[in-house]
Amino acid sequence: MPVRVLSVGVIGPGRVGSALLEQLRAAQPRLARDTGITLNLSGVIASKRMWLDCDDPQLNNRQNGAQTWRPGNIDEFTAHVCGNHKRHALLVDCTAHNEIVAYYPHWLASGIHVVTPNKLGLSGNLARWQSIRHACRSGTARLRYEATVCAGLPVIQTLRDLLDTGDRLISIQGMFSGTLAWLFNRHDGQQSFSSLLHEAHALGYTEPDPRADLSGMDVARKLVILAREAGLPLSLEHVEVESLIPPTLAGCPLDTFMQHTSTLDAPMNARLAQARSEDGVLRHVASLDCDGHARVQLRVLPSRHAFAHTQFTDNIVQFCTDRYRDNPLLVQGPGAGPEFTAGGVFADMLRIAESLTTCA
Amino acid sequence: MPVRVLSVGVIGPGRVGSALLEQLRAAQPRLARDTGITLNLSGVIASKRMWLDCDDPQLNNRQNGAQTWRPGNIDEFTAHVCGNHKRHALLVDCTAHNEIVAYYPHWLASGIHVVTPNKLGLSGNLARWQSIRHACRSGTARLRYEATVCAGLPVIQTLRDLLDTGDRLISIQGMFSGTLAWLFNRHDGQQSFSSLLHEAHALGYTEPDPRADLSGMDVARKLVILAREAGLPLSLEHVEVESLIPPTLAGCPLDTFMQHTSTLDAPMNARLAQARSEDGVLRHVASLDCDGHARVQLRVLPSRHAFAHTQFTDNIVQFCTDRYRDNPLLVQGPGAGPEFTAGGVFADMLRIAESLTTCA
Repeated sequence: MPVRVLSVGVIGPGRVGSALLEQLRAAQPRLARDTGITLNLSGVIASKRMWLDCDDPQLNNRQNGAQTWRPGNIDEFTAHVCGNHKRHALLVDCTAHNEIVAYYPHWLASGIHVVTPNKLGLSGNLARWQSIRHACRSGTARLRYEATVCAGLPVIQTLRDLLDTGDRLISIQGMFSGTLAWLFNRHDGQQSFSSLLHEAHALGYTEPDPRADLSGMDVARKLVILAREAGLPLSLEHVEVESLIPPTLAGCPLDTFMQHTSTLDAPMNARLAQARSEDGVLRHVASLDCDGHARVQLRVLPSRHAFAHTQFTDNIVQFCTDRYRDNPLLVQGPGAGPEFTAGGVFADMLRIAESLTTCA
Repeated sequence: MPVRVLSVGVIGPGRVGSALLEQLRAAQPRLARDTGITLNLSGVIASKRMWLDCDDPQLNNRQNGAQTWRPGNIDEFTAHVCGNHKRHALLVDCTAHNEIVAYYPHWLASGIHVVTPNKLGLSGNLARWQSIRHACRSGTARLRYEATVCAGLPVIQTLRDLLDTGDRLISIQGMFSGTLAWLFNRHDGQQSFSSLLHEAHALGYTEPDPRADLSGMDVARKLVILAREAGLPLSLEHVEVESLIPPTLAGCPLDTFMQHTSTLDAPMNARLAQARSEDGVLRHVASLDCDGHARVQLRVLPSRHAFAHTQFTDNIVQFCTDRYRDNPLLVQGPGAGPEFTAGGVFADMLRIAESLTTCA
């Protein structure tokens, strides 16, 4: 089998980044033996410091040990990962902020592959998205971002395969927030909505500030990424987002919000009652149609709807296309969490590695 | 973007083969423009005759027109698809029988890529499967067969990604027969099971002889393919298959069977009653665990099980792994039909095409 070697740099060793590093380390021997693919970790860069393999070459294969860190510099880091002889290089942006994406067009134009689970950049400024796409199309480097939508679930590639094989998108619908899926699965009137919110927060199912989940903006970003994958020039401001945060609690400190969550109870009970009067269920749904109309909202769905029977924090995505018109294609499962997200990133890296062939 | 050209030969222009040919033809201009990939149809071979593009070069881009057929010869066909200058070549086995798979090891060893939706060969003789795998691993050619299990649903690649990124399989469960899914979705006691069977047959949801569906062997073959994908040396004879065909009707002519389907009613009613007494539903389920135990059987599932809420003829596949242990990963949708199967084959072809890079 062909031997393919990829020099890898991981940016942002946070929860996802460190889960990825562990998965990569554990997989090294098996990968080389079974697939001929070697993913060499050349460096890791955090916000202020970086580790380069030239400083601790033996550390790559050990889980523990003192690492030699030097001051971080993204250009130096990138140059080190690329090396002197134009080896195949891949950078993984595991940061949770919007800064690294500014480098993508330059990296891609230089032939450096990029993989990321970071939604911020790819759902941000449309012109920047278009310059990133242009850099991919004019060169040979690849950008993959499966894990931006539902972590390790096969979503973006599934959409890509449908469109590339000539199918035509009618709509995508999904529950893209595990937090909100859990809340509305549990919200049956037996407990107040606010007590469920506190339970979810204590279980770690919400962001540290649950308003980040209730705003619906994280879901809207995933919808923007899917729309752009389908060739629709959607931006965040075009998505109709129904925020579940009471206006009076939108801007106050977190403590104040957490003490006043009971403000949510009456409206949520009313929504539940409405759903029941229609023999339906209440679900937080994102939807996109082929004309680019995008919405994130709390909706009443028929009780036989596929979204009425998911469990716990499952995400679910439904693709309606010309082929899958009456019977859509559905993917479901946990859509967030470091292990799942790292797995999705790792699969993207392998796909890029598979596309590198040695000259025959 | 890199330009990649693949010479394609289609074997077996039946229902799936002709759906594929149409999808390929329709996609040509867009593919070349958007991805740089050109899939050149070099020939089509049926059971006794073949069409080679050198005989009608202009036909490739037209849907209609008299084709020049010559007597079929698989070796001549293969040589023509490969051409004189060792171009990248791919053969698609769209036949429904077991003969072409004998060529796979030789083709793969010669560097010819192979894609197939045909389950027979890959779920057949274990030694042959192992020689096919060996031919892939020692060379550069690829074999892809996503469409053997659930047509266009992302199943085999999903399993592959989980395993390649270091996840460990616990079990796979699925409803792999659209026919049986439909029957047991509808079987609620309001109509006799046999009348539902006749309805399904009239709607084209069953094989011409419905015993091919009721035997469970087609489902067993899909389980064998998944097991082998997961590295388990399973053969069809190791799968515990519960046939739903009454023994007295197993060997008689089709007409006789169709006149005596009421034999099925009493046992099916009894099974339904049993399910209801347990507050469950009756479903035809295939299951495989990590020790290689494989079963195909009619089972009672809890009414909250994911398999209790699928629609119509949907297939559904559930992956339980170390990562997806408490919350499995699920894929669901139509799992049979020429358009879906052709789409799955086409996606496999694109994946192989993406892995061909020109030497930089």
